[in-house]
Amino acid sequence: MNWFQKEILLSSYPRGFHLITREILEQLPEIRNYRVGLAHIFIQHTSASLALNENADPTVRGDMERHFNVLAPEDAPYFVHTYEGPDDMPAHIKAVLLGNSLTLPVKDGRFHLGTWQGIYLCEHRDRGGRRRLVVTLTGE
Amino acid sequence: MNWFQKEILLSSYPRGFHLITREILEQLPEIRNYRVGLAHIFIQHTSASLALNENADPTVRGDMERHFNVLAPEDAPYFVHTYEGPDDMPAHIKAVLLGNSLTLPVKDGRFHLGTWQGIYLCEHRDRGGRRRLVVTLTGE
Amino acid sequence: MNWFQKEILLSSYPRGFHLITREILEQLPEIRNYRVGLAHIFIQHTSASLALNENADPTVRGDMERHFNVLAPEDAPYFVHTYEGPDDMPAHIKAVLLGNSLTLPVKDGRFHLGTWQGIYLCEHRDRGGRRRLVVTLTGE
Repeated sequence: MNWFQKEILLSSYPRGFHLITREILEQLPEIRNYRVGLAHIFIQHTSASLALNENADPTVRGDMERHFNVLAPEDAPYFVHTYEGPDDMPAHIKAVLLGNSLTLPVKDGRFHLGTWQGIYLCEHRDRGGRRRLVVTLTGE
Repeated sequence: MNWFQKEILLSSYPRGFHLITREILEQLPEIRNYRVGLAHIFIQHTSASLALNENADPTVRGDMERHFNVLAPEDAPYFVHTYEGPDDMPAHIKAVLLGNSLTLPVKDGRFHLGTWQGIYLCEHRDRGGRRRLVVTLTGE
Repeated sequence: MNWFQKEILLSSYPRGFHLITREILEQLPEIRNYRVGLAHIFIQHTSASLALNENADPTVRGDMERHFNVLAPEDAPYFVHTYEGPDDMPAHIKAVLLGNSLTLPVKDGRFHLGTWQGIYLCEHRDRGGRRRLVVTLTGE
């Protein structure tokens, strides 16, 4: 039984949905020590989120961005929290809809994902800057 | 401290929300070995998801399907990812809204759920086929 | 390696989004025993949920309530599950959109959150009463 925890500072991404599986794995060689376990990936922000979805066709990520802009539009007349800009409150709403963490099964030193599954950074601010993750591994 | 991980292949379900608590438990007798712990249930797909909700009245599941078809409609004019059919991109969106995994507390060899909580398979494709879960148990 | 699990009965909250980080921590002194680990917070209900978001400006929580009432309105003509009142089916939908649990990294005896992150109880019923959480800690 081993516990491992580290912080990962991601590259800066523009607003939208981005595939970051490789960027995480490059900073997480320790996953190879786990035959079976769980990986918990947590984003320490309230206006960006993590999701797991299609890793092949980039149009899926574009459609996600377009559709979430409909689900949480910038111009809702009942928004009060607007002083940080029109992209701020929609960002908070998208963040709770999508969620702040992923828990992934680990098997034989790898994320035990389906063929088409990849990790998305969902950047909801126009200028979110570099986002910080906390990754926790546990298993044997 | 024990780790246990297994893959479960579900029956094939039509599009909609389905109660699968019993189907999972029938394939997971190992949960009885855990006095306290966590169960992680993960779906290895990008167009189906897992949720936890009302286990009694089936009209809740019907209303869920009807409402998610409004939240992620088939005919959004800005969808680019359409070549796999009109049900494909809405399925990806529903999957990230609902999520790909559940983490449940385990107590005395059972899921420690509320009285009305049951596990839903949310099948978002018209013909999704049999879906694969990875279940990881950890505890003591 | 230590496992700890306890049930926490929250105060009663009105419909809306409420910051409960402090209320949870006051009932969870055991977290100080964990140098590194995970905290799993689970709500045993199908019409209330947990989320992680902005802990400072309360207008964020008001905007959340207003926007989720648009995403899951009370008067959808296709709702069949209506006999428990107009707030019931929207509550179930909000619960699956937001989710029934949070998994948080633990570091040095505390939740390892970002500066602006706080735990929300999302109460979706007009009169939800006191809600029950199951908190599971694991780590070393």
